[in-house]
Amino acid sequence: MHQSFPVRLVAEALGTFVLVFGGCGSAIFAASVIADGPINMGIGFTGVALAFGLTVLTMAYAVGHISGGHFNPAVTLGAALAGRVEWKAVGPYMVTQVVAASIAGLALFGIASGREGFDAVESGFASNGYADRSPDGYSLVAALLAEIILTAIFLYIILGSTDSRAPKGFAPLAIGLGLTLIHLVSIPITNTSVNPARSLGVAWFAGPEALGQVWLFIVAPLIGAAIAGLTYKMLFPNTEDVILER
Amino acid sequence: MHQSFPVRLVAEALGTFVLVFGGCGSAIFAASVIADGPINMGIGFTGVALAFGLTVLTMAYAVGHISGGHFNPAVTLGAALAGRVEWKAVGPYMVTQVVAASIAGLALFGIASGREGFDAVESGFASNGYADRSPDGYSLVAALLAEIILTAIFLYIILGSTDSRAPKGFAPLAIGLGLTLIHLVSIPITNTSVNPARSLGVAWFAGPEALGQVWLFIVAPLIGAAIAGLTYKMLFPNTEDVILER
Amino acid sequence: MHQSFPVRLVAEALGTFVLVFGGCGSAIFAASVIADGPINMGIGFTGVALAFGLTVLTMAYAVGHISGGHFNPAVTLGAALAGRVEWKAVGPYMVTQVVAASIAGLALFGIASGREGFDAVESGFASNGYADRSPDGYSLVAALLAEIILTAIFLYIILGSTDSRAPKGFAPLAIGLGLTLIHLVSIPITNTSVNPARSLGVAWFAGPEALGQVWLFIVAPLIGAAIAGLTYKMLFPNTEDVILER
Amino acid sequence: MHQSFPVRLVAEALGTFVLVFGGCGSAIFAASVIADGPINMGIGFTGVALAFGLTVLTMAYAVGHISGGHFNPAVTLGAALAGRVEWKAVGPYMVTQVVAASIAGLALFGIASGREGFDAVESGFASNGYADRSPDGYSLVAALLAEIILTAIFLYIILGSTDSRAPKGFAPLAIGLGLTLIHLVSIPITNTSVNPARSLGVAWFAGPEALGQVWLFIVAPLIGAAIAGLTYKMLFPNTEDVILER
Repeated sequence: MHQSFPVRLVAEALGTFVLVFGGCGSAIFAASVIADGPINMGIGFTGVALAFGLTVLTMAYAVGHISGGHFNPAVTLGAALAGRVEWKAVGPYMVTQVVAASIAGLALFGIASGREGFDAVESGFASNGYADRSPDGYSLVAALLAEIILTAIFLYIILGSTDSRAPKGFAPLAIGLGLTLIHLVSIPITNTSVNPARSLGVAWFAGPEALGQVWLFIVAPLIGAAIAGLTYKMLFPNTEDVILER
Repeated sequence: MHQSFPVRLVAEALGTFVLVFGGCGSAIFAASVIADGPINMGIGFTGVALAFGLTVLTMAYAVGHISGGHFNPAVTLGAALAGRVEWKAVGPYMVTQVVAASIAGLALFGIASGREGFDAVESGFASNGYADRSPDGYSLVAALLAEIILTAIFLYIILGSTDSRAPKGFAPLAIGLGLTLIHLVSIPITNTSVNPARSLGVAWFAGPEALGQVWLFIVAPLIGAAIAGLTYKMLFPNTEDVILER
Repeated sequence: MHQSFPVRLVAEALGTFVLVFGGCGSAIFAASVIADGPINMGIGFTGVALAFGLTVLTMAYAVGHISGGHFNPAVTLGAALAGRVEWKAVGPYMVTQVVAASIAGLALFGIASGREGFDAVESGFASNGYADRSPDGYSLVAALLAEIILTAIFLYIILGSTDSRAPKGFAPLAIGLGLTLIHLVSIPITNTSVNPARSLGVAWFAGPEALGQVWLFIVAPLIGAAIAGLTYKMLFPNTEDVILER
Repeated sequence: MHQSFPVRLVAEALGTFVLVFGGCGSAIFAASVIADGPINMGIGFTGVALAFGLTVLTMAYAVGHISGGHFNPAVTLGAALAGRVEWKAVGPYMVTQVVAASIAGLALFGIASGREGFDAVESGFASNGYADRSPDGYSLVAALLAEIILTAIFLYIILGSTDSRAPKGFAPLAIGLGLTLIHLVSIPITNTSVNPARSLGVAWFAGPEALGQVWLFIVAPLIGAAIAGLTYKMLFPNTEDVILER
């Protein structure tokens, strides 16, 4: 079941596109749709959390057997550190993910512009943020801590559920719903990244203040993923080393 | 596991009936149930998104092994273009789906009429729409873009998760929750179609303005599905060609 | 994997207890918890729909391999008509289900009484109803139609997903989430029964008006289940006849 | 698939950390995020219930094959009484779980302190309670009953779905969603424990009144788990006795 390298990049591109289009799209279009009352008919943070998780669940079942289904530079780093993906794939995977995420951001921008009164900067455009740009006012340190811990948890879920000892076939379910869990916890803190590609993909459109904070959502997820990737084999030894296949 | 052709049509009819009765039914009966406050005790867009997805998840497990579990003319077109279903099945599948969807629309109309003050046209009757009929005011172009992209994503999920390389048995889960994801993103844009049968099934009852816009929800899903169906084998070659079986 | 008959009844008792305690309990305790604003912190109809489905999903995985995991007299009738369970089991299964549901109702009554101001009759106690007792004002005929159609759909999901041709192991997932789907559609119509045991289990505590309407929630689910049970083998022939095992 | 004992404790520590960080974290950070209107954009009790369940679902897939995936002293007790885990593991498992839960509580306290105006005692910090500390005013007796019954149900789901007769691989799904079900029912009653480690992990930070009530959330879950652990083999005999492996 070896796939050619370009086909693997296509799978990463498609999966990351869906992650940003579906996850950030649900936040941009559907989180808040106020009817008279006022009542929010929209999906709120619960719906956005579900949407992000389902992008990974569905695309990992669809193309995870081709590329490993990372869709996230932090996951690629963690998988490489844990010996699940070859190092020479890391650069191309990351570039592909960021490009695909940015194309998804552009597609979202195009559709959102079809609504009168839309303003990407004012709406936030599903960008991540801390301090004054945190949805519920959390500090830089709190944001950093949350993103590092949650990305590490995400990687432990990924590395554990794709371990050769785990039940076969269920990893995309566990990983996707793990991303839902992460969003249920942290949307109010940072709007939830744990994924530098997702953060960059929409930050281009969200104004200079969003771009000025995007460094944290590159650095923190990479740190969190590195911690998990480096410690997984130490914490849970005897794993047969296999290239990540879900 | 070859099924006779009429039995396959019965499976498509039953599945499409459930899709429209359950998905559109949840929107018509349960999306908005206002209690004092005012508070919406109803299921909102999140609940409707979940309901649509669960119709496909459940019926694909129930009868997907018989007919492939399309329940959607766009899926049938995409599956045919990808070589997953024989071309001579396409016409009968599509007719069956539209007829079953319309019978489901009739059943919903009958039940809804048992509530005082019900007015199908005024309520919208879960019909799809754009511009002045978009739930949150999105333009025709935005609606077209969203429906094309989301139907293409839906087909990639379907073709990928039923690929012979994917984990066995999980496709209905991925496909059903994929439809939930699609609704989480796009109910505010078009009330979400990605399925011409679903759109037609309720449009008959929703008044001339709904019927006048239904063309978009036939054309756009078919375009999106065709894009995915035509490109899937190019993007992800080496697939063993198999008739779609979940 | 033949289980002794008394052990099967224990499994049905436990599963039905959980169905009523969990499903009706979520409605009684958690559907509406109003905070200042007013804002409903409670789970609303979406949460109740999820809870009902999860009772069946979890208990079918826990004891479905022992008893078939019916937890519902209508399911037992439909399974018998489809040749999935022996006829002599039908009576004892149904009696067990109704007794266990009523014990669950009693446990809920005990806990609910620990909250000041609780009044089972006034609160409705998660009982089913139509016309003036329908949550959103649906007529007797609408209630009858909805319960018949939805119970038939439930049985098609059950019979289909436990068919020998369906993917192995996924039936409890499909069946449980099928019950969630049914609740997402019909809580506003009848508070959703599709299960005479669930209806009786709480009706004892909900006052004479609730008891006066409970006949519909015995008759309609049994009719719907009978329609599906009688037609399943006709519609989807060539099934290997097997005793229902999930 | 025998794991060394220290590795099993690492798995329990990680899983319990995630349970408290994710479950209690979702309650602390995200349950209530009030926007103008006022509208709760937060996840409410439904989202918290989902988050708790997903912590167990994901970590049981990730490390359940290593330690059994208890993450809960009550589960460890029930598993020991049912012969699924060796008695000498019980003490170390329980200590590990409580320590990991408390570290998670500390991490949550650190992040929460990054929000201006945060007060752990005043906010409740996701602690469990009864009577005046019950979220919706339930008495000590109601709280006791609910925690005992729900923990017993949880153990029946765990012991049943990991039984050698149950479908392979689905236990983490059933168990995780079982915890979601339990929260959907009982957050308004006690804020839901069924897990002494979860209760202790946050009680340290929630003030003397929370600590003064924590005894109930140690005693009641242990009683409920003991009832199920002691009766499971009696109720469902002929089970091949196996060490809990999901």
